[in-house]
Amino acid sequence: MVDEQGRVSGQQFSEKPVLRLARKDILGIQEMSASEISLILDTAESFKEVSTREIKKVPTLRGKTVINLFYEASTRTRTSFEIAAKRLSADTINISTSTSSVAKGETLIDTAKNLEAMNPDCIIIRHSASGAPHLLARLMRVPVINAGDGAHEHPTQALLDLFTVREKKGKLAGLNVAIVGDILHSRVARSNIYGFTKMGAEVHLAGPRTMMPAGVEKLGVRWHSNLREVVPQADVIMMLRIQLERQGSGFFPTLREYSRFFGLNLEVLKEAKPEVLIMHPGPMNRGVEISPEVADGPFSVILDQVTNGVAVRMALLYLLVGGERETDRSSV
Amino acid sequence: MVDEQGRVSGQQFSEKPVLRLARKDILGIQEMSASEISLILDTAESFKEVSTREIKKVPTLRGKTVINLFYEASTRTRTSFEIAAKRLSADTINISTSTSSVAKGETLIDTAKNLEAMNPDCIIIRHSASGAPHLLARLMRVPVINAGDGAHEHPTQALLDLFTVREKKGKLAGLNVAIVGDILHSRVARSNIYGFTKMGAEVHLAGPRTMMPAGVEKLGVRWHSNLREVVPQADVIMMLRIQLERQGSGFFPTLREYSRFFGLNLEVLKEAKPEVLIMHPGPMNRGVEISPEVADGPFSVILDQVTNGVAVRMALLYLLVGGERETDRSSV
Amino acid sequence: MVDEQGRVSGQQFSEKPVLRLARKDILGIQEMSASEISLILDTAESFKEVSTREIKKVPTLRGKTVINLFYEASTRTRTSFEIAAKRLSADTINISTSTSSVAKGETLIDTAKNLEAMNPDCIIIRHSASGAPHLLARLMRVPVINAGDGAHEHPTQALLDLFTVREKKGKLAGLNVAIVGDILHSRVARSNIYGFTKMGAEVHLAGPRTMMPAGVEKLGVRWHSNLREVVPQADVIMMLRIQLERQGSGFFPTLREYSRFFGLNLEVLKEAKPEVLIMHPGPMNRGVEISPEVADGPFSVILDQVTNGVAVRMALLYLLVGGERETDRSSV
Repeated sequence: MVDEQGRVSGQQFSEKPVLRLARKDILGIQEMSASEISLILDTAESFKEVSTREIKKVPTLRGKTVINLFYEASTRTRTSFEIAAKRLSADTINISTSTSSVAKGETLIDTAKNLEAMNPDCIIIRHSASGAPHLLARLMRVPVINAGDGAHEHPTQALLDLFTVREKKGKLAGLNVAIVGDILHSRVARSNIYGFTKMGAEVHLAGPRTMMPAGVEKLGVRWHSNLREVVPQADVIMMLRIQLERQGSGFFPTLREYSRFFGLNLEVLKEAKPEVLIMHPGPMNRGVEISPEVADGPFSVILDQVTNGVAVRMALLYLLVGGERETDRSSV
Repeated sequence: MVDEQGRVSGQQFSEKPVLRLARKDILGIQEMSASEISLILDTAESFKEVSTREIKKVPTLRGKTVINLFYEASTRTRTSFEIAAKRLSADTINISTSTSSVAKGETLIDTAKNLEAMNPDCIIIRHSASGAPHLLARLMRVPVINAGDGAHEHPTQALLDLFTVREKKGKLAGLNVAIVGDILHSRVARSNIYGFTKMGAEVHLAGPRTMMPAGVEKLGVRWHSNLREVVPQADVIMMLRIQLERQGSGFFPTLREYSRFFGLNLEVLKEAKPEVLIMHPGPMNRGVEISPEVADGPFSVILDQVTNGVAVRMALLYLLVGGERETDRSSV
Repeated sequence: MVDEQGRVSGQQFSEKPVLRLARKDILGIQEMSASEISLILDTAESFKEVSTREIKKVPTLRGKTVINLFYEASTRTRTSFEIAAKRLSADTINISTSTSSVAKGETLIDTAKNLEAMNPDCIIIRHSASGAPHLLARLMRVPVINAGDGAHEHPTQALLDLFTVREKKGKLAGLNVAIVGDILHSRVARSNIYGFTKMGAEVHLAGPRTMMPAGVEKLGVRWHSNLREVVPQADVIMMLRIQLERQGSGFFPTLREYSRFFGLNLEVLKEAKPEVLIMHPGPMNRGVEISPEVADGPFSVILDQVTNGVAVRMALLYLLVGGERETDRSSV
């Protein structure tokens, strides 16, 4: 519980949090431990309730500056981070490529160093280049959160997915999780593979062979060429967005063909477990990878994912920014 | 009066407002009653004074989240809503098409449902498709305000226009109101026709026949093919923006021709009543539908309209969002 | 010092500041006196400390509305102003050309008058046309800050540069300042020439003859055709950004050629004084006007400039907006 003064579990926001992450940045799930993930999910539980209050705001990050640096367009992720920061009373600054001096040819590093010089407390970055957030994190003192880098990782998406499954199923260990679609190009899939396997779930992938990364078995998961092979055992079915522009590019022949073999519809869902969870990171191509009846049906937790995204991001901002650091103590 | 604690007419912001709208959304003037309109205008009067204070802010909507979802570019309307929300202490989120995942082909409904899942308190939408706000309002629990939908309605513009006339004239009933220009494509005209007739004013339209909607008389107004026919009786002359791109499209031959017949200049204004009010929703084409001398002259209330827009939008946000709802009570 | 209640030097934010600028607007350094500049720099010193606090926020401008009206893209300047305003607790509104009704052809004046009608407390404007901020300032009651107008002035950049040099050198008078590059097209150079000469420094310019404004000597500065002529005496070397698109345009033949004659690298720097300061307004073309070793080297104060930009802009907002004006008194 977070009370109206922003105290989490009985501690006041201006004190060091009892619970601390042992890292400066959130770059990927690959480097996280199960206990770190659990700490984040537990903290998110406390913050979820804030968004259901009459006054959806705690003073936890008052006087902190959070920068959203988005080199790729995004509604949901940027909005989710912005709402999370504002409900913690942080000041938020949005920078998107269309309005940035990227057009003037400045390097990413120079842009970031310049922003850091303005004394922000956290930089959230989305970039089309894999590894861009890691580069920044290495060069900056300020916490960096990866909001999606190329086809590499999207750790906050995986954390909200883990949160949603844990909330609905009461556990993660031992669950059978099917991830379906274009694994090769999906940072969401990659982060979720790391996340679910670390938490003790069994991950099965389904999708065209052309869309499977080479050596995917080394990640501790199994590939299936047929959606119907993974559905009956699955506790969770996570559908990935297919990039429409890949049609006819050698990855798959047509959307219709793709949909026929890897689209989730009521017909396929008949073979699923009675308590199965249907997930999708959005934005959905309705009628392609998922039918409207399934997306809006009783097993879908797609909107819960979005709701939980705010809670998870509040938790991350709290854990990374909320506590005083030793180096800040002197200036108080 | 709104005091510094955000109390309106002696009631505290955390209590149920004494005055309540009996609707969840503001979609159009067509479906509003005269008493609802009066309630909004009365409430706006209380809020107008806030923007003249040294500290232009009341805590009325602290901890509330207001989303501006703009699918069409806008300076004035988006800024007016954003300022209104901020002066009520709400958190505001701006989403415009250029930065949204609309580019990724998500449906309007999915975008809106996703935003709703983040627990906002109000969604303000501008969209080029008539009826888009109504669709959202039907599907969502959260209040929706129409900030302009296609050529359909722009209810907050009409409310601020009504407010401005009532403020200057002391009444609405019995006034003679002339609306001049491209009625056919104007959501401003449509909302104002509904608004002024409901409040008991007599509305006259002037403009080229090609720019009059079929059956306009059924709305209780009269069409005139000549500006000079409506000017002498008018208490209010509302000039509409002409879309420059319609030139030569069959609606009118040239801007010069249009301006000659339907432009308001000092010459035409000579025939007007001594206390006439000149209005324009902006942005103006100076020298086309209105001459600079008239736009900036003593009868112009064009900037009052803008000032009043903030007050009217504060009132709407207060009435729709400010009070606790029964359904929220349980979570307090 | 600014305390947590926003008092500067013992005065409370709701009282008239003891220190007042005798002007409504900040349009250019040309019209400022040395004592005004000193007042701004002194005030900025008080505010610099705020950004190093645990809670980087003072209530000084609570309930004030600050509008960033940017007709040219900018990351650093817009972000710097936005952070400055937020750390003073002002509400900020961002308007950029891409989302504005400029596309609809409204004049700059109408846009500005409309914004003014919403009762903001300050308008910050960047525009590609020299003199645009001056035009607005003349027509509006609200304070206007020039965030860069064409090739004319960028006064807040010069003020932060002056602040940085004064902070590092303890003085401005008597210093030897070299400004290097495309003086002709640089509003940064122009504002700095005015600023440093007013404060008693000696300014030397180096750059291709094609990039020197005619009659530059009348500004009290000296032109050198060779970078190596100005380096040995300089206490400060300010490198300007070269516009890559001017290559081959008659101003200079190739970037390589330009870099060879006017680029600052370790080799050239060998001839500099041991305590020289290297400055650049950003964004940098690394390897063109400045080598990475110099930009990131021990003499570089480039990131200090950015940090100080926030402090200087906080000071300006405080001085222009923070105090009650006589005309406002009546409404309190």
